[in-house]
Amino acid sequence: MNIVLLSGGSGKRLWPLSNDMRSKQFIKIFKTKDGSYESMVQRVYRQICSVDADAAVTIATSKSQVSAIHNQLGENVGISVEPCRRDTFPAIALAAAYLHDVRGVAEDEAVVVCPVDPYVEEDYFQALQELGRRAAESEAHLVLMGIEPTYPSAKYGYIIPEGKDQISRVAMFKEKPAEETAREYIDQGALWNGGVFAFRLGYVLQRAHELIEFTDYQDLFDRYDSLKKISFDYAVVEHEQQIEVMRFAGMWKDMGTWNTLTEAMESSSIGKAILNEHCMNVHVVNELNVPVLCMGLKDMVVAASPEGILVSDKAQSSYIKPYVDEIDQQIMFAEKSWGSFRVIDIEEGSMTIKVTLNPGHAMNYHSHALRDEVWTVVDGKGRTIVDGEERQVNAGDVIQMPAGVPHTIVADTKLQVVEVQIGSEISVHDKVKIELPVSR
Amino acid sequence: MNIVLLSGGSGKRLWPLSNDMRSKQFIKIFKTKDGSYESMVQRVYRQICSVDADAAVTIATSKSQVSAIHNQLGENVGISVEPCRRDTFPAIALAAAYLHDVRGVAEDEAVVVCPVDPYVEEDYFQALQELGRRAAESEAHLVLMGIEPTYPSAKYGYIIPEGKDQISRVAMFKEKPAEETAREYIDQGALWNGGVFAFRLGYVLQRAHELIEFTDYQDLFDRYDSLKKISFDYAVVEHEQQIEVMRFAGMWKDMGTWNTLTEAMESSSIGKAILNEHCMNVHVVNELNVPVLCMGLKDMVVAASPEGILVSDKAQSSYIKPYVDEIDQQIMFAEKSWGSFRVIDIEEGSMTIKVTLNPGHAMNYHSHALRDEVWTVVDGKGRTIVDGEERQVNAGDVIQMPAGVPHTIVADTKLQVVEVQIGSEISVHDKVKIELPVSR
Repeated sequence: MNIVLLSGGSGKRLWPLSNDMRSKQFIKIFKTKDGSYESMVQRVYRQICSVDADAAVTIATSKSQVSAIHNQLGENVGISVEPCRRDTFPAIALAAAYLHDVRGVAEDEAVVVCPVDPYVEEDYFQALQELGRRAAESEAHLVLMGIEPTYPSAKYGYIIPEGKDQISRVAMFKEKPAEETAREYIDQGALWNGGVFAFRLGYVLQRAHELIEFTDYQDLFDRYDSLKKISFDYAVVEHEQQIEVMRFAGMWKDMGTWNTLTEAMESSSIGKAILNEHCMNVHVVNELNVPVLCMGLKDMVVAASPEGILVSDKAQSSYIKPYVDEIDQQIMFAEKSWGSFRVIDIEEGSMTIKVTLNPGHAMNYHSHALRDEVWTVVDGKGRTIVDGEERQVNAGDVIQMPAGVPHTIVADTKLQVVEVQIGSEISVHDKVKIELPVSR
Repeated sequence: MNIVLLSGGSGKRLWPLSNDMRSKQFIKIFKTKDGSYESMVQRVYRQICSVDADAAVTIATSKSQVSAIHNQLGENVGISVEPCRRDTFPAIALAAAYLHDVRGVAEDEAVVVCPVDPYVEEDYFQALQELGRRAAESEAHLVLMGIEPTYPSAKYGYIIPEGKDQISRVAMFKEKPAEETAREYIDQGALWNGGVFAFRLGYVLQRAHELIEFTDYQDLFDRYDSLKKISFDYAVVEHEQQIEVMRFAGMWKDMGTWNTLTEAMESSSIGKAILNEHCMNVHVVNELNVPVLCMGLKDMVVAASPEGILVSDKAQSSYIKPYVDEIDQQIMFAEKSWGSFRVIDIEEGSMTIKVTLNPGHAMNYHSHALRDEVWTVVDGKGRTIVDGEERQVNAGDVIQMPAGVPHTIVADTKLQVVEVQIGSEISVHDKVKIELPVSR
């Protein structure tokens, strides 16, 4: 199965666990069999591989997520990087060109497109395989998944099929309705539109060439920022007569808000948390290393991370976005392709961060114009290169890098470093990447 | 006025702002005229000095609070240090011996004893002056303050006076009653016993010598740990016939729990906090440098510090102690005589702290057997002495101290240092104090 996972959004609705650097799909919130936690993207990827070990997975996403994806899924996953955000039609066109020109997928092969963040079980991915098989052989140009509604939701668009068979032609699409209208749709046999569909690759490439002037993947990538924002629904689906829908009656939850996310949690808390016996329907997600004590709470979510603390009535938590938009907070945690960092102290004229490098990884060789840096290795083994000089380092070693001096660190084992930055203007933009000396 | 402030307790009821190292009276929670915040002990000390600029203030407390008291009140305040906790009678006897033998207070001078943590206005301290004046001239051996009850509280003991005059003899003491009984007491004219009283110094010294065999202050101090635990009420008050009570009708609040403490807060939040419009009767105290966002909360207190996060229904917050007793948490913040420190990272084999030294102060000269340390100065100017070698240091300087090497740092201005500790066994007990070389 060729599957494209659409990984979007800055995910402010799940603040403080999500932020501009970490979208909700990267929060490790789902307990695995071995007792550790995995993120939505890890869960979905694991489920796909379990259903189809040969699945070719491509993640369509923005540049800012590439590090986190490699960090969580490894280096082998395919990524179609959108140079900037241009809505779903350009994103799917770019992913299609990537599959054809970079991955060598043939035009008559089926491709399944699906958002990265539904909370589902393996039967869902079995249904996606079916969807792909149907798309490969059907006369229809698009085969959509229609999810059997469990309640008259006003949050989803609806698909009205012509019949009641497992697969039937689509009679009509309906925009997100009011609850009452949703009830009427459901009485007519309507299904939720979860944004999941399959097609033969050549079909979408043809639509893309009709609507965008480009030669191949690289050309499309290069002109991406000049494309107009348009959704796949608006650009393709609405103009297409040959559309089928395939029913899916399994578990499907949209993890968009704290309210729905906590429904998928196996226990009432993740991380250090104490809930007294007067707490009812309370969920705690605590990423800090100090305890959260909850007493006498009802219908609430408490979430704590290096970015901040949310304490919210569950129903209210859906309305979080405007409040988070107003928070002007230094990024306190980020996943990078080489590991992660966390800000542990901020002062006028200094910032201290804890850097974790994964084994075999290294930072870029770089320098800063306006700040000195000091590394103290606290755990692991590695090598530093400062001004071209390589040196072995272990726990307890101290490395000083005055402003202007290029430096990097290479992790031979998992490596943890406390980095103190000192300077009057400390900014992520004060960074010059430098080629390593050729002898290396 | 000679005034002894009893400063007790580990203050777990106000966790996470109070801990074993910081009792509730040191939490900076009260807004001052200049917009900064002061603690209960700072507020009370300021109020006393404002009412009586010549007041001789002595704080009776345990060793563990001495650093915090000097840090918050300066070096000039008198402290009677209890070598260990032995309840109020030994503590008051020790303070009395301290006043007589160390501070030279005469036996016929009056002394006022008062807990350090009531939330009061200046009229209270004017009443304390009156109480002292009365004790100096009265035939009674003890003059108690009786607080006019504002409701039938089950939390306080009651004093039943013989008459309704401003000053009258005490007819009876009553233990903390049930609410109904409290109502009956109040109908009989009973007053709250706030643990405030005055006496001539010679009277308490005489009682002390009757009950404890000791010669002078130093002798009493030396044998303090062999004394039996007994309250002043039980040892003295219950056996004394000559007791008067003086009425006080001004504002008096006991700040023992989050519920009562938040009543004294001028605004709904201290620190970075956002409360949406659906929050009602919510108080937030946030000592972290990231925001707390509260949505749709009612009758709640949220408190966040480096030690942890409390989210509690206000009424439930009174029952916090057993939960906090079970938290086995590394001390994350402490005030010391020379400044303060905060733990900013903990790993297996390392701990990173942020140290702030006040101008003119220094750590003890010391070494550690089982850990190396690295200081990176992030702000200010000072001097380090490492293995006898003195060196000027500024922001950006790095000082390495292998295990066994004695070291200290002296702050010439306010000095901030990131200290990385590296070793397999990191413990506060791994510390050897060393005499500085005589040449210094």
